[in-house]
Amino acid sequence: MSSHHIVREKQEPALLIANGESCGSECLGQLLEWSPFVVVLDNAIWRVMDLGIKADVLLGDFDRHLDVAAVQSAQYPIEVVHAPDQNKTDLEKGIEFLIERGFPGVNIVWATGRRMDHTLNNLTGIVRYKDQIKITIIDDYSVVYPLVGRFEKWLAAGTPISLMPVGVVEGVETEGLAYNLYNETLTLGYRTSSSNEAATDGFVRVQAQSGDLLIMECHD
Amino acid sequence: MSSHHIVREKQEPALLIANGESCGSECLGQLLEWSPFVVVLDNAIWRVMDLGIKADVLLGDFDRHLDVAAVQSAQYPIEVVHAPDQNKTDLEKGIEFLIERGFPGVNIVWATGRRMDHTLNNLTGIVRYKDQIKITIIDDYSVVYPLVGRFEKWLAAGTPISLMPVGVVEGVETEGLAYNLYNETLTLGYRTSSSNEAATDGFVRVQAQSGDLLIMECHD
Repeated sequence: MSSHHIVREKQEPALLIANGESCGSECLGQLLEWSPFVVVLDNAIWRVMDLGIKADVLLGDFDRHLDVAAVQSAQYPIEVVHAPDQNKTDLEKGIEFLIERGFPGVNIVWATGRRMDHTLNNLTGIVRYKDQIKITIIDDYSVVYPLVGRFEKWLAAGTPISLMPVGVVEGVETEGLAYNLYNETLTLGYRTSSSNEAATDGFVRVQAQSGDLLIMECHD
Repeated sequence: MSSHHIVREKQEPALLIANGESCGSECLGQLLEWSPFVVVLDNAIWRVMDLGIKADVLLGDFDRHLDVAAVQSAQYPIEVVHAPDQNKTDLEKGIEFLIERGFPGVNIVWATGRRMDHTLNNLTGIVRYKDQIKITIIDDYSVVYPLVGRFEKWLAAGTPISLMPVGVVEGVETEGLAYNLYNETLTLGYRTSSSNEAATDGFVRVQAQSGDLLIMECHD
């Protein structure tokens, strides 16, 4: 039975390992605990192999002459997906691959840090897929996911939460935050709701009329 | 003669040290070489002092009970600017402080990495000040600055350059890139011009009709 098959039955989110800064072993260990289906992007495979992690899929354009045969030998069996489309980032291709395979969700690591162009693209590009797959980007300081419909989560008093618009988000309404928003417009670069927090132990609720909002749970 | 006075005569950019991930010593060393006017944000002062760097100004809301007296004693003389406005980030306050002091430009370090809400706010929030002060955010992998008017720079063939819109940028025109844009619209989260590069040794030119564009020179 392949790990893929196990995952499909459990409806667990896949794990997508991108090519930014590595996260700490604790962060990665928790995500690997449930033996998710693991997709690794391009040259990140070497760092993944150094950590002794078994990947199910290696995906990328391999334009940096990745030695695929060496990876296949060390990680057998591994599915190799050559995705040469230069109009999409490797992360976009990875997400689309998992949508095609029918995964309900994906946790993404190593998608932040290092190059800021990739970081900005990765953080904001997930909004495009928000209605097709449940996406969460995780690093050592942040958990990031797009608002889809109405957000509701129980948080302890003082838990930091930031609402970051990808462009313009209109009609933002919140409940349970220290600084609530009432039918307000957020605009990236001009007005965000960063470093907000849960006002009390209880439910935080967020909704918006239009636009793409990222919810970020970050800590120092 | 204060270091401030020296800077004003030379019209050198100030150095603003924020509270994200520290950059490498090479990056910081190059920026300190010209003895810039150094502004440090809040608790970053401890890391700055550990590196033996002399700051001219300590600025922040000090809401984490920063021991200002200890800093003043170790860094004497240092100007302490208490900036409690909760509607602005410390980085915004630091930029506004330097605008008020008449600096023509500012290099910003430690503004990326760690918390992604702060990183995203810091990277995109600089566009608000682009007509008042020349801003460059620098880390170990990236040099980021807003497009102001028409951009023109000589770059060696293959030099990576990314054009990242903060929201929607219309009428983007480029020359000298591998993938040039002709009166095109870029939209963050949907269409950026990431991982572009100089087509040949020569000038790269970028202009836009409306919106806020970030230019990013990044490397792996």
